[in-house]
Amino acid sequence: MGIRVKILGSNSAAPAHRRHHTAQLINIEGKYYLMDCGEATQLQLKRYKIRAQRINNIFISHLHGDHYLGLMGLLSTMHLMGRSQKLNLYGPKGLSEIITMQLKYSQTVFNYEINFVEVDTTQSKVVHEDNFVQVTSIPLNHRIPCCGYLFAEKKKNRRIKKEVLPDDFTIRNIVRLKHGEDIFDDDGNLQYKNAALTLPARKSYSYAFCSDTKYDESIIPIIKGVDMLYHEATFLEEHADRAGSTYHSTAKEAATIAKKAEVGKLILGHFSVRYKELEPIRDEAQTVFENSELALEGEEFILDL
Amino acid sequence: MGIRVKILGSNSAAPAHRRHHTAQLINIEGKYYLMDCGEATQLQLKRYKIRAQRINNIFISHLHGDHYLGLMGLLSTMHLMGRSQKLNLYGPKGLSEIITMQLKYSQTVFNYEINFVEVDTTQSKVVHEDNFVQVTSIPLNHRIPCCGYLFAEKKKNRRIKKEVLPDDFTIRNIVRLKHGEDIFDDDGNLQYKNAALTLPARKSYSYAFCSDTKYDESIIPIIKGVDMLYHEATFLEEHADRAGSTYHSTAKEAATIAKKAEVGKLILGHFSVRYKELEPIRDEAQTVFENSELALEGEEFILDL
Repeated sequence: MGIRVKILGSNSAAPAHRRHHTAQLINIEGKYYLMDCGEATQLQLKRYKIRAQRINNIFISHLHGDHYLGLMGLLSTMHLMGRSQKLNLYGPKGLSEIITMQLKYSQTVFNYEINFVEVDTTQSKVVHEDNFVQVTSIPLNHRIPCCGYLFAEKKKNRRIKKEVLPDDFTIRNIVRLKHGEDIFDDDGNLQYKNAALTLPARKSYSYAFCSDTKYDESIIPIIKGVDMLYHEATFLEEHADRAGSTYHSTAKEAATIAKKAEVGKLILGHFSVRYKELEPIRDEAQTVFENSELALEGEEFILDL
Repeated sequence: MGIRVKILGSNSAAPAHRRHHTAQLINIEGKYYLMDCGEATQLQLKRYKIRAQRINNIFISHLHGDHYLGLMGLLSTMHLMGRSQKLNLYGPKGLSEIITMQLKYSQTVFNYEINFVEVDTTQSKVVHEDNFVQVTSIPLNHRIPCCGYLFAEKKKNRRIKKEVLPDDFTIRNIVRLKHGEDIFDDDGNLQYKNAALTLPARKSYSYAFCSDTKYDESIIPIIKGVDMLYHEATFLEEHADRAGSTYHSTAKEAATIAKKAEVGKLILGHFSVRYKELEPIRDEAQTVFENSELALEGEEFILDL
């Protein structure tokens, strides 16, 4: 399975040119993680036939409206559609207060628990961990407290060669094989060498989401060598002054970060309303970093064998 | 021109069946009034090529998410797109606080002024008045503080018969004609009878918006004889128990209010997610009140000669 990143929206500031605000569904081994939640994200999930109730972890980068104004509606719909499963919500200071106030005035108590985790956007720390992934915050350099998130798959088990596995093999021994152990009989004699029955574990993939930020090399040690990097590219170099004053990046800057961090692939997004055509953003990035693509809505970027 | 009501959304609770949350654009003599603002209203405005910046007055009925979660995004886009014109915002207690808190955490100060008017949802009072319309609150019977709004056009001027107007007629005298006065010469002699140069004023129309509410006849005196009534019809009679427990109405109840209030036309909306097909809602209402129609997205209901 690996990691699949579905782009639900990637426009900055105001929706335009039929492009929605930032949101991405990250699918890791069939588990859904939502990254940012701009207005109408719940509609985009419906559009792409993604079951919202399967999302158990939501990450918010910062409290500019284009990154979180769809959250309250999505949480409400989860409630109305009968959710009971706990939801983890990761975001900066203020997010919990905003949700709580809106619930107060709508006199609503959700049927499910929200475990709100306030993220310190100034430090790189593990904020979430489960059987599949470890998620680490990435301090970004924006006008307000803001962080990206690094999704790193856990080390995978060795893969069983099913076709050579004896019929009488126990589950306990299969687990041992997956963990790389050899198999011994009851008398302590080597029965099977691990390598005879397994293949190496598949690669563990990593994906870093970095929006919104001005060019800042301090993120490079954190994202070094990730398989895929989403980095905002709000502007073209010709509007570099505007990028600087609004704490955003140009396509060339995003590509420079990708190159210096030696990532596998760069996805460009958070496009300014001023650009109807986006190819120039990709073209500009590719002059610095060849493997650059646009975060177009509906596109799915897959990290897998 | 009269009154034109464009349906931007009319689904209740959660978006479903490609139907959006409640929002209506009310166009009175070319002036735009927005009634409720569910999530993605700004996208619906774009879809129907309606310039958001022309909206100077927004009315919110209550603070359930399906009626206001698009507001913050719309206000933000107005700001980002360079609005400077003051905006009047009418809504219940809490709305101002919710907006203020979100602005605080996004560290944003809008370039335009919002004149927030807190509406007492328990009383019927004039809340807005301009050259074209008077807007009066309608207390509704819902789970949380909620009111509808009655839009009543001001008395119109008499219409000039341009084809018979003498060339040397002064603007001052035209104003007199519009106000129904006869025209006298400098010596005080009757020069023109008003009726010779004018036609009667066109009718002043009225439109009442009532969502969300359980069946409650106390609104009838307020909406008596309006040309058009939007009344929620969340459920069919077969789900009357559900309507009762959630403080909503059935189609038949909406039609009964329309009949007793002797309105010209009834528009039904705020459809439950459970209904994919809406014709049964209209059919049920029409058994009680013939001139009933569905508030389908994109439909425009026009009150004009």
